[in-house]
Amino acid sequence: MSGEFDLINWVRGQQPAPAVGGGAVVVVPPGDDLAVLKWPADDLLVVGCDQVLDGVHFDAARHTPRQVGRKVMNRNLSDCAAMACLPAAAVVTVALPRGVGADYAKELYLGLRDAADPFGCPIVGGDTASWPGPLVVTVTIMGRSAGLKPVTRAGAKPGDAVYVSGPLGGSILGRHLTFEPRVALGRRLAPDLGITSMIDLSDGLSRDLGHLCRESGVGAVIDAAAIPIHDDAILLMQRDGRAPLDHALNDGEDYELLFTAPRGERLVVTRIGTITSEPGVWLQTDKGREPLEPKGWEHGV
Amino acid sequence: MSGEFDLINWVRGQQPAPAVGGGAVVVVPPGDDLAVLKWPADDLLVVGCDQVLDGVHFDAARHTPRQVGRKVMNRNLSDCAAMACLPAAAVVTVALPRGVGADYAKELYLGLRDAADPFGCPIVGGDTASWPGPLVVTVTIMGRSAGLKPVTRAGAKPGDAVYVSGPLGGSILGRHLTFEPRVALGRRLAPDLGITSMIDLSDGLSRDLGHLCRESGVGAVIDAAAIPIHDDAILLMQRDGRAPLDHALNDGEDYELLFTAPRGERLVVTRIGTITSEPGVWLQTDKGREPLEPKGWEHGV
Repeated sequence: MSGEFDLINWVRGQQPAPAVGGGAVVVVPPGDDLAVLKWPADDLLVVGCDQVLDGVHFDAARHTPRQVGRKVMNRNLSDCAAMACLPAAAVVTVALPRGVGADYAKELYLGLRDAADPFGCPIVGGDTASWPGPLVVTVTIMGRSAGLKPVTRAGAKPGDAVYVSGPLGGSILGRHLTFEPRVALGRRLAPDLGITSMIDLSDGLSRDLGHLCRESGVGAVIDAAAIPIHDDAILLMQRDGRAPLDHALNDGEDYELLFTAPRGERLVVTRIGTITSEPGVWLQTDKGREPLEPKGWEHGV
Repeated sequence: MSGEFDLINWVRGQQPAPAVGGGAVVVVPPGDDLAVLKWPADDLLVVGCDQVLDGVHFDAARHTPRQVGRKVMNRNLSDCAAMACLPAAAVVTVALPRGVGADYAKELYLGLRDAADPFGCPIVGGDTASWPGPLVVTVTIMGRSAGLKPVTRAGAKPGDAVYVSGPLGGSILGRHLTFEPRVALGRRLAPDLGITSMIDLSDGLSRDLGHLCRESGVGAVIDAAAIPIHDDAILLMQRDGRAPLDHALNDGEDYELLFTAPRGERLVVTRIGTITSEPGVWLQTDKGREPLEPKGWEHGV
């Protein structure tokens, strides 16, 4: 089968000198059955995975493989941000539509690297196969606690302030592909603010705040006037007539950090509400308080 | 969206008391952005991933979700076997065809657990989405060195004997779904025989031996008469007329261990050849020595 493109060998040629950010060491690099890492003895291993599917998370007819690679890696890096951990290493599986060719696969890999390299996060393993189906890319990310206790969704306390790290809504206009994971911000704010719980906004504020409240056994009331609205949400209103606040609450894929902290200061982040002992997520407007139903992305079966 | 099945919550209810085999500890279980593990200080982290695709690695019209779950987990456990490491934890992504329903997803998860539980290997994270495409399941496996140096593909030396752990060929008749990963065997034989290189047979002997030789910078000559032929290869010959030896050399998905060691003893495994300093993979028959072309599974793009 000479002439066929050997992606694994090409990737191995692309790999820089193995180095895992600040402590871990790649003992056996990609190309064997499995990679081997020396994990720093004082670091917790923070691990999870996320996938992108053609037609769900991107559109292969409109988006380049480089954009797709960046997005799936950045989604995983954003999960690291939400745990206040440092990305350390990743493994990747790719189901490539038959016949897309070698350049497509290379661009996809380069997109993964575009996202991971700024964090010193090597891709240490993978599995690529071609098939008759649409493009599927998954990333498993391994992060290091690196001196900070990982921040879960479960620590919010009644009276805590609720914050977001940036403006929300309308990500479908392009930001869902170009966002930057808030790794550095999560690492800095977690100790500075004494963050009690955190999640990244992938499913939408209304749904993700529900996740956080459920894990913490609390409720939350959100101040409608305080929610930072992205310009994209206003642009999108001109297309679909839905209010910018609706977009900000429900669109999802903002990949900003949503977190709680006992201090009520306004910083580079925006306070948007308060944790309550009563369960439920509530929206406070000038007309009063109403339940905020989760309308964002639902992982139903 | 009440009434929709919440797979994550169901899975969390299924999870046994968190415990990673013999050392690692699950600090934050599934359900947060990422899981958190305490990795034993003296254990190398052995990591990689593998996927199964409908129409390539299984046929969703004929195979049950439970079989599919078992297969993808066992493929990853087999990679652990090939490194002589102990499975410690796994994360899973599932792209579910729209409308398959909750029971399908549950059965898939139970198949993953069927395979992982005997090894004390908890599923610590995952990502499930439904989509219009066919079923895709990926597993990332994390293993522990646990007192043994991980065995790579790169250590074969000229003069080493070449072994396989069991009979080969015809796995398509069913064994590709029902094989048992050779974790215990790999762990026992690696120190006992002084194994110098190892790989699991997924792509077929002719191709996988080529991978091993290339990584080790050596060649190999295989004794055609010594290759253990599975009954399935003989059954398959009755259908397709291809010689049983051809099936044993090229079918793949045997998930037996192929390894090299300096000692020439015959044990529970079968010696099938010898490593040479000259590159290339050769087949020795009573008619002489001929090149063994790789005909097994090719991961072309």
